[in-house]
Amino acid sequence: MLIVMHHHASQEQIDQVIAAVEAMGFKAEPIPGSLRTAIGVLGNQGYVDDASIRILPGVRETIHVSKPYKMVSRDFHPASTVVDVAGVRFGDGQKPVVIAGPCSIETEEQMLAAAQQVKSAGAQMLRGGAFKPRTGPHSFQGLGLEGLKYLQQAGKASGLPVVTEVMRIEQLEVICRHADMLQIGARNMQNFDLLKEVGKTGHPVLLKRGMSATIEEFLAAAEYILAEGNEQVVLCERGIRTFEKSTRNTLDLSVVPLIREMSHLPIIVDPSHATGKRALVPVMGKAALIAGAHGLMIEVHPNPAKALCDGAQSLSGADFSALMEEFSGLLKYLGH
Amino acid sequence: MLIVMHHHASQEQIDQVIAAVEAMGFKAEPIPGSLRTAIGVLGNQGYVDDASIRILPGVRETIHVSKPYKMVSRDFHPASTVVDVAGVRFGDGQKPVVIAGPCSIETEEQMLAAAQQVKSAGAQMLRGGAFKPRTGPHSFQGLGLEGLKYLQQAGKASGLPVVTEVMRIEQLEVICRHADMLQIGARNMQNFDLLKEVGKTGHPVLLKRGMSATIEEFLAAAEYILAEGNEQVVLCERGIRTFEKSTRNTLDLSVVPLIREMSHLPIIVDPSHATGKRALVPVMGKAALIAGAHGLMIEVHPNPAKALCDGAQSLSGADFSALMEEFSGLLKYLGH
Amino acid sequence: MLIVMHHHASQEQIDQVIAAVEAMGFKAEPIPGSLRTAIGVLGNQGYVDDASIRILPGVRETIHVSKPYKMVSRDFHPASTVVDVAGVRFGDGQKPVVIAGPCSIETEEQMLAAAQQVKSAGAQMLRGGAFKPRTGPHSFQGLGLEGLKYLQQAGKASGLPVVTEVMRIEQLEVICRHADMLQIGARNMQNFDLLKEVGKTGHPVLLKRGMSATIEEFLAAAEYILAEGNEQVVLCERGIRTFEKSTRNTLDLSVVPLIREMSHLPIIVDPSHATGKRALVPVMGKAALIAGAHGLMIEVHPNPAKALCDGAQSLSGADFSALMEEFSGLLKYLGH
Amino acid sequence: MLIVMHHHASQEQIDQVIAAVEAMGFKAEPIPGSLRTAIGVLGNQGYVDDASIRILPGVRETIHVSKPYKMVSRDFHPASTVVDVAGVRFGDGQKPVVIAGPCSIETEEQMLAAAQQVKSAGAQMLRGGAFKPRTGPHSFQGLGLEGLKYLQQAGKASGLPVVTEVMRIEQLEVICRHADMLQIGARNMQNFDLLKEVGKTGHPVLLKRGMSATIEEFLAAAEYILAEGNEQVVLCERGIRTFEKSTRNTLDLSVVPLIREMSHLPIIVDPSHATGKRALVPVMGKAALIAGAHGLMIEVHPNPAKALCDGAQSLSGADFSALMEEFSGLLKYLGH
Repeated sequence: MLIVMHHHASQEQIDQVIAAVEAMGFKAEPIPGSLRTAIGVLGNQGYVDDASIRILPGVRETIHVSKPYKMVSRDFHPASTVVDVAGVRFGDGQKPVVIAGPCSIETEEQMLAAAQQVKSAGAQMLRGGAFKPRTGPHSFQGLGLEGLKYLQQAGKASGLPVVTEVMRIEQLEVICRHADMLQIGARNMQNFDLLKEVGKTGHPVLLKRGMSATIEEFLAAAEYILAEGNEQVVLCERGIRTFEKSTRNTLDLSVVPLIREMSHLPIIVDPSHATGKRALVPVMGKAALIAGAHGLMIEVHPNPAKALCDGAQSLSGADFSALMEEFSGLLKYLGH
Repeated sequence: MLIVMHHHASQEQIDQVIAAVEAMGFKAEPIPGSLRTAIGVLGNQGYVDDASIRILPGVRETIHVSKPYKMVSRDFHPASTVVDVAGVRFGDGQKPVVIAGPCSIETEEQMLAAAQQVKSAGAQMLRGGAFKPRTGPHSFQGLGLEGLKYLQQAGKASGLPVVTEVMRIEQLEVICRHADMLQIGARNMQNFDLLKEVGKTGHPVLLKRGMSATIEEFLAAAEYILAEGNEQVVLCERGIRTFEKSTRNTLDLSVVPLIREMSHLPIIVDPSHATGKRALVPVMGKAALIAGAHGLMIEVHPNPAKALCDGAQSLSGADFSALMEEFSGLLKYLGH
Repeated sequence: MLIVMHHHASQEQIDQVIAAVEAMGFKAEPIPGSLRTAIGVLGNQGYVDDASIRILPGVRETIHVSKPYKMVSRDFHPASTVVDVAGVRFGDGQKPVVIAGPCSIETEEQMLAAAQQVKSAGAQMLRGGAFKPRTGPHSFQGLGLEGLKYLQQAGKASGLPVVTEVMRIEQLEVICRHADMLQIGARNMQNFDLLKEVGKTGHPVLLKRGMSATIEEFLAAAEYILAEGNEQVVLCERGIRTFEKSTRNTLDLSVVPLIREMSHLPIIVDPSHATGKRALVPVMGKAALIAGAHGLMIEVHPNPAKALCDGAQSLSGADFSALMEEFSGLLKYLGH
Repeated sequence: MLIVMHHHASQEQIDQVIAAVEAMGFKAEPIPGSLRTAIGVLGNQGYVDDASIRILPGVRETIHVSKPYKMVSRDFHPASTVVDVAGVRFGDGQKPVVIAGPCSIETEEQMLAAAQQVKSAGAQMLRGGAFKPRTGPHSFQGLGLEGLKYLQQAGKASGLPVVTEVMRIEQLEVICRHADMLQIGARNMQNFDLLKEVGKTGHPVLLKRGMSATIEEFLAAAEYILAEGNEQVVLCERGIRTFEKSTRNTLDLSVVPLIREMSHLPIIVDPSHATGKRALVPVMGKAALIAGAHGLMIEVHPNPAKALCDGAQSLSGADFSALMEEFSGLLKYLGH
């Protein structure tokens, strides 16, 4: 940590800061400058809570060099992690994984049709939401337990592992029995109690980036899961909230290479939620693969026009087959 | 809802959209323009899920006129709601309420001292966090149940009702026994299962705006609580996330008059979290009162320099006393 | 400046950075930490261009302690500046100034009526746009030179100094002859050539914050004007662009106390452009005064329903008179 | 345009709005709903200024269906425009163009070396800044006219057309004589007078997206140039300002396919400014090509460690050669 003093800070104020740092058990190293003095903090083993420093008289700001995460960082875990979901592998050296399926589980027939379509087109995993986070309480909230059964059944029929979103801790046990991977949605990325409990299950986790989460916060959220002993975490970029409203969110594709450098965890991209527009999904999916994504998550619905949720961003089975052929060519070009 | 067709949409495409709207049980009213045709949707009783419309050929965009909430809206509930927390009243016609206390509960002594300080300075409610949402797992996470006891004890000793944050559903029962009001933090504003369960308790709720929540999403989150039969909801603006980093968040004070116009629920302001800077708390607190806030939430710590959390934005007891005197003058000027 | 090395940076890489810093004529002070080494840069007289450092192998990031401005900073100019516009004074110790008038100058009669209305209501300065920055080329672009004459005439008739926006350098001479103060609009805040030329005129300047300008960039833009020898600069907060669209912009009121602390220049607030809603202008205007603004800029139009520009946020003459009475009471309360 | 009335609007208020619309020469079509009435405006040939409507009693909001641009829209100009810069062609059906060179022109030798390097690596155009927009006045502002000469000379020596930024109208004539294409930087995207004058020159223009410009504003800025009779405009996405600070800006790659659909103008991407990190330039450049960009703009410096500007995001000549080989493979895969 670096403590920057005000231009007019007195020597007494500087001494007081040094004393406070030393009282915390660290070493303080003053760096006098021509305009102001800065004080380096040495000897900390990680992130320092600067609350007691920032408020001392004469302190202008504190600058953190350490980060609020460690276990997810490549600094301390250089080897890339491969996440294995019932035989489907995400990570460096693996062929990128395509997860596909409808936003929400609606009927047994819909799920079986969707599973068959995405399987025959070449997807490696099946998605479907049984518990749906909706902005208002008057929208369709998902089929719940009944939906989970349809999902599991469709997964078995097609031979695809399945992933579904978990929204509350009490659902964890039953979802772990029905699904191969647990999804934490963007709105729950900082639901820290849920993260801890998901960590304890040991089940593979798909952690979506919060709508306005910085990369630092995103990695710190994953750290909650790893801190409970669960390293089977796949990160997912799904667009961030910005001033631009012509797409549903702003796909922040640069985080893919950045997170690959900062963390050993795999990162995938969800172009369906990021753009909210069916016509943009294929092109942004391919861009994500070029950017180094370890996989993609794509909404496919047997009949998008009848979808109860997110129809505008869902591909039909036929669209998805065509897209998978495009991906296939691109992946060959990329050496997979 | 209004459906806007592309410039080159064919009559056949327009007819298909009209048929789809009618199939949903609504009336479609075409509005031919010189550049493009728009189609009005009539007869809906609320928000229409446009998924099946947006994807039809020739549709450029759909525009919602209805909102994803209704019960929180002044349109359907013109009279202002007054929320009563053990005799402390928030709402139109009431003197603005000041809630004060430390960010996190640290020791029995700290809480008793804080309660005594804020009480004698004139605060009407006491705050303190027993369960703390922290960005990373390696920061202090709160004292938990032990903290709740200190809080309740300090509330009783000072005669102040208490509010504390709830982060998981299993905590609800015990927190309801120890606290007079439940706080939903910014990170959990869209933890919809928590909102529903909080709604079922009937306990007064303090709902903080999410970091990147629009007003529409904020009100829709409150709608989850009201939809369970609980109207005792106080909204709280605490700053939003923007590009500007010189304050911890950007205090969006304009929402105070706007929400007073749109909703019948009371709205308060938290200048401590919004600014993150102790020196800005008094001035922005006064600005919030002028803007029409029904109350303020202010961090006060007996010894900010030793605070385990958010010390930089906490006032000392003496600072807070001085501030309450300023508020007192301003409230008199405002007719309270 | 502080240079933070990667966790795995070698001693050789550290030495190379030290050598590069010394080659720039500064002193380098290594601060070894348990996780990584940081290197302090000493001896610089201001902002250091870090281009040649950031790209050296082993460097993770550089952190600036100095700022890209100096003359606008209170650090180097502790006494508050008072800006004098033909006898109207902005700054500490002065009564806050209200500038009022229409968004755009439309006719001679409109300007005379507006001037008379705002003068009789108690405004100290008159505004009106002759050259209008409009999003698209097909909207009304202002009356130009003819408008300037109407403005000057209305100013003389009412005895109020006038301010108007300048959009191009060639207009400077004629605008200086017709107006007492030059306004730089939000879209031109980083039109650096215009800033320099405005600086050379010596005329008082009203500099509006750019839509997505940080405080640092805002102050650095003012620095361009001061660097040409012109200290007569009034800053103006007019809302920033965020994800929230229920107001035209997000009024960032916390910058008022912050800028008062960081800079010696006066700062005023434009609640009309910030909110875009007539109903919010009075309340946010009062909040700005409480927050310490040295003045307000308010759109007033004799007939808002017929305004060619921004009618929705303009007050009528009668509304404005009522508002000035409210301000008057508040200013008395504030000791003016 | 659609006018949405308040829930409680009276019939009299509705009639008043209808009268106002008809007074503007348009037709008003009321659409009564169960919750509120909306009024469609018909007969307008383009964007309607809603100022006089929005402020009528009972009006909740107005919704625009028309856009503030027309000439740049594919609706009215379906055929894709190809921009020709001294024989180098940008647009549909053309091989994507790579523009490369240093951020700023520093010396004759540097420009000649850069030109030779980027030419031999396969770039089709040369860039270099003679007039530099810098946040603060104390940073290097560019070599000015002398720099222009070095640029032109380097262009001639290498046979590459050159592009350079124009910051003020008086520079236009001399820059047109020295450069083949005029660049409008992000900070000047809404410097409307500059846009108009650039339009009058007829010279090809590279228009960069403003830091916080919506797509609508970006296209409306281009409309200013086309409205003066100059269709030779290439758009450039260079990252937008968001809350995320781990990259210099947030590259909004989804606008590439979106703008290709909305407009007939070519669009290129600048991954250097968007990311601000040398290591991300190659991967995001390739992602941009996959996303359909008609070209790329890349910073290359003979000696990035000595660059006076933006060294951290500049590639060396050797890096750039390697990158061009990667591009070459990808372009072949894409059919070029």
